[in-house]
Amino acid sequence: MAAQKLDLLLVTHLANVRYLCRFTGSAGALLVSNKGVHLFTDGRYTTQAREEVKAARVVIAKKAPLLAAGEWISSHRKAARGLTIGIEGDHMTVAERVRFHETLPAEARIRAVSPLVEPLRLVKDRDEIDLLRAAVLMGAGLFEVALKSIRPGVRELEVAAEMEYAARRAGADAMSFETIIASGERSALPHGRASQAVIPADGFVVCDFGVILSGYCSDMTRTVYVGRPSLEAREFYGAVKAAQLAAVAAVAPGVSTGDIDQAARKVLQQKGLGRFFTHSTGHGVGLEIHEAPRVATGQKDILQPGMIITVEPGAYISGRWGVRIEDMLVVTESGCEVLTPTSKDLIALDS
Amino acid sequence: MAAQKLDLLLVTHLANVRYLCRFTGSAGALLVSNKGVHLFTDGRYTTQAREEVKAARVVIAKKAPLLAAGEWISSHRKAARGLTIGIEGDHMTVAERVRFHETLPAEARIRAVSPLVEPLRLVKDRDEIDLLRAAVLMGAGLFEVALKSIRPGVRELEVAAEMEYAARRAGADAMSFETIIASGERSALPHGRASQAVIPADGFVVCDFGVILSGYCSDMTRTVYVGRPSLEAREFYGAVKAAQLAAVAAVAPGVSTGDIDQAARKVLQQKGLGRFFTHSTGHGVGLEIHEAPRVATGQKDILQPGMIITVEPGAYISGRWGVRIEDMLVVTESGCEVLTPTSKDLIALDS
Repeated sequence: MAAQKLDLLLVTHLANVRYLCRFTGSAGALLVSNKGVHLFTDGRYTTQAREEVKAARVVIAKKAPLLAAGEWISSHRKAARGLTIGIEGDHMTVAERVRFHETLPAEARIRAVSPLVEPLRLVKDRDEIDLLRAAVLMGAGLFEVALKSIRPGVRELEVAAEMEYAARRAGADAMSFETIIASGERSALPHGRASQAVIPADGFVVCDFGVILSGYCSDMTRTVYVGRPSLEAREFYGAVKAAQLAAVAAVAPGVSTGDIDQAARKVLQQKGLGRFFTHSTGHGVGLEIHEAPRVATGQKDILQPGMIITVEPGAYISGRWGVRIEDMLVVTESGCEVLTPTSKDLIALDS
Repeated sequence: MAAQKLDLLLVTHLANVRYLCRFTGSAGALLVSNKGVHLFTDGRYTTQAREEVKAARVVIAKKAPLLAAGEWISSHRKAARGLTIGIEGDHMTVAERVRFHETLPAEARIRAVSPLVEPLRLVKDRDEIDLLRAAVLMGAGLFEVALKSIRPGVRELEVAAEMEYAARRAGADAMSFETIIASGERSALPHGRASQAVIPADGFVVCDFGVILSGYCSDMTRTVYVGRPSLEAREFYGAVKAAQLAAVAAVAPGVSTGDIDQAARKVLQQKGLGRFFTHSTGHGVGLEIHEAPRVATGQKDILQPGMIITVEPGAYISGRWGVRIEDMLVVTESGCEVLTPTSKDLIALDS
């Protein structure tokens, strides 16, 4: 805050609010100032906020937390000349900024600052790595559930239902995103959420899923084959697997995330599949399913020990088939540790 | 657009994008101009966008849809003097606005406009009401699942797991929000998401849940009693039920949503429970679980036939207990039709 010359910082992104003060409710704004830290929330969270939040004073407001924070500033900062309030430009809407501005003393200035909290979240501490490890293991257990459910004639969403039921019973807060079960031609949809489609007797099934456990997300993808894969299918799968392994092998402190992306892309290009790899190689994971760093073409972010990312190359031929393989891993002092324990060999399920 | 003097309108809120062109992907921006309507999305959605979108031209971009739209404007509107581009101020972040601006011709102006698409979504057409009715019925079926699962010693999240499993198997896209199962003292948390807590032998259990079916949301709450409710518990429940019935009875075209809120609030005030009703009475439901109109103190929105809202008063005594009862209803020409088919009598489950 000093470096950005801020008198006050208003944190409105809920994952950042949670990171800073442990509040898990769905409405909250955290105001950081030299008069201390205040969490503004509403009457639905009176009890919960009192239980969760030790590092901030809790203010229960009748109006939106954002506006309550603005009014608090107005009433506590009479001499507002030159007062500069930092906001999270990536998380406050244009309309919220206008409404927030209206609550402030006329002399106060709002400045949208580059992310201040996200950089703190980039490198996970030991407790966070343990929580992420637990989430990853629970997620991996769901793949075993999927393997039992996937067979020709079963609807994709039935597979998702079995997985999500198991996750809930195991104590997951929720799934970390909408479960993707994409079978047959639908495997060529990189984001093929489980649908009413029936799994065909012959083809790939992409399974991409994760849980939220104690607030932290897991994310993994495995692609299985229902029926007997042709040589072409096995080679296609093998190309994606080789790309995934190459990218994992490239992970080490000091390497840019763009280079990780390139390592995967290069393998697929060599096999003539480069143009079918239509998304980026991975992303950071933590309190959010997608967070910094991006692992994509041209990215300059440098890996550091304690960062947790996915590595998930894929290849998709529209109208035909697709394959994606994804692990989560933590960057270590010497390279990386793959957290996802599941084999990446091609599994063929008899139809 | 003409009334707001816009040359172009950029729709970035995904529910609005879906409403206008049926695209269901997670990244998209819709640009409306006199040269037609264009949907910008990325390579993950090439196939899906082609299948879903008939009312717009699909542009697959290598960058974020927002920036792709900006560059499209730059390359198609060389003479940009006075060009005014409307954006959705409620849905674009401060940082996105800056980045979008950088892609535009220097002479172009951005104007954050008051919602243009949401007013179209306020009154549901016949097809939408049918979809919402189906979602409500599926949601109501989950309450029967909950009744079978709720008993002392069972963890709240096991109840949620059974409900969510049933929802998925029935074909729900997803739950419309995190399932709330709040038992014993936790019933006093209006947003008590299903937790590891074990349902006690004696007390209320608030169940608030919904599904998304074909994109449309359901939302309902019932509160049951595990054990034998005391006279005081029954009276407390009865007060909330009376408030709910009073609010439902007040619903009719031409009435303000603030008056609906007041109808519920007045009943609880008369019973000395006014200060324990700490949230608003309801909200609109449709493609989003919370959409216009707000049904809250002082709101001036006027109900019209075809609007769909929740009516969900509650009362919560911290550390003791809480009760909430919620239906979804559609405003009709003569009053309203309650869509939720489930009885509101107090159910006591033997412990």
